Amino acid sequence: MKRSGILFVISAPSGAGKTSLCRQIVDIFPDMRHSVSFTTRPRRAGETDGVDYHFVSQETFDAMVSEGAFAEWARVHGNCYGTALATLQEAYENGLDVLLDIDCQGAAQLKRTCPDGVFIFILPPSFEELERRLRGRNTDSADVIARRLSNARREIRELVWYDYLIVNDDLPSAVDEFRGIILAEGCRAARSKDEAIRLFGIDMQDN
Amino acid sequence: MKRSGILFVISAPSGAGKTSLCRQIVDIFPDMRHSVSFTTRPRRAGETDGVDYHFVSQETFDAMVSEGAFAEWARVHGNCYGTALATLQEAYENGLDVLLDIDCQGAAQLKRTCPDGVFIFILPPSFEELERRLRGRNTDSADVIARRLSNARREIRELVWYDYLIVNDDLPSAVDEFRGIILAEGCRAARSKDEAIRLFGIDMQDN
Repeated sequence: MKRSGILFVISAPSGAGKTSLCRQIVDIFPDMRHSVSFTTRPRRAGETDGVDYHFVSQETFDAMVSEGAFAEWARVHGNCYGTALATLQEAYENGLDVLLDIDCQGAAQLKRTCPDGVFIFILPPSFEELERRLRGRNTDSADVIARRLSNARREIRELVWYDYLIVNDDLPSAVDEFRGIILAEGCRAARSKDEAIRLFGIDMQDN
Repeated sequence: MKRSGILFVISAPSGAGKTSLCRQIVDIFPDMRHSVSFTTRPRRAGETDGVDYHFVSQETFDAMVSEGAFAEWARVHGNCYGTALATLQEAYENGLDVLLDIDCQGAAQLKRTCPDGVFIFILPPSFEELERRLRGRNTDSADVIARRLSNARREIRELVWYDYLIVNDDLPSAVDEFRGIILAEGCRAARSKDEAIRLFGIDMQDN
């Protein structure tokens, strides 16, 4: 049945495996539009501009904020991250679902402006496992790891207001649950009821 | 994460393919308890007592009603159908999910007593396709088919209060969506939040 596009907002502490999860989801759902965030943080080895992030200077970012170009933006670990309003509008207009992976601050802003969005929190199996993953990454200094862990402890407290929790213990299972959430949300009566009523010629006056 | 059992309640007009769907779901989720309803309707060719239904006499059914043995019961197409309270209690006590396929009257009773249940309505692609399927079945008289179609028109109006709608156009896709709903409901924060809060030692007083 026809339905409007759904906004899926994903948050997770660093090391929970959000990036790998989102990549697989976009492969499974070719019509899903993965919103690429703008950021002022330096590009890491292996990252591509326009794919992983739009890497911009602080000046460019500040100008976009002034122009009202962001649906949400936040400062995290000392860097700025933002989602362009144009990306969301374009997807909505084309009836496509959008996948947004953003931090809890940005997600909280969107929860207020887009209450119909689906908010998903990815959890590591434990703090111990999160620490092991961050150390194993070998891209960040001890200092940065310590900051990420302390941020993770704060971010995980935000899970209380999300719609879904996925524990990323085993990546294929987590992808399967994420995929299940996307399928289920497409079947939500709240989204497709009007189309069903039209399709079956239900006269609501009789009900 | 540990969570309590979920009650999945499925309704559909005759011919929407509910029976095939439920059979496949029970195969996919071996821990899912498929509740077998009690009925006073005659056994059809190919049906097994205790598997498809518990076939009982009207006297036995009436006695069970008097004893309060049913979580819900209803008279449909002139026959009685009921779900034994014992089946639901046993599954809950063992932390298992339960799949209940019952008519809209029974589902509406359960919606009041089990508001945490997940209510799913299976739709045929159209009334025309439903009629074609019922005629193709070759088990019912023209009279019975006419009554089933007229009941279907009335039942489909009930879709408005269900949580999810699945259009059974193609069985594998419908099974996949149904499976997605089960996975997604298991990830609902409302069901697993308390366990996550415990697991990560979140102090809610700080929030």
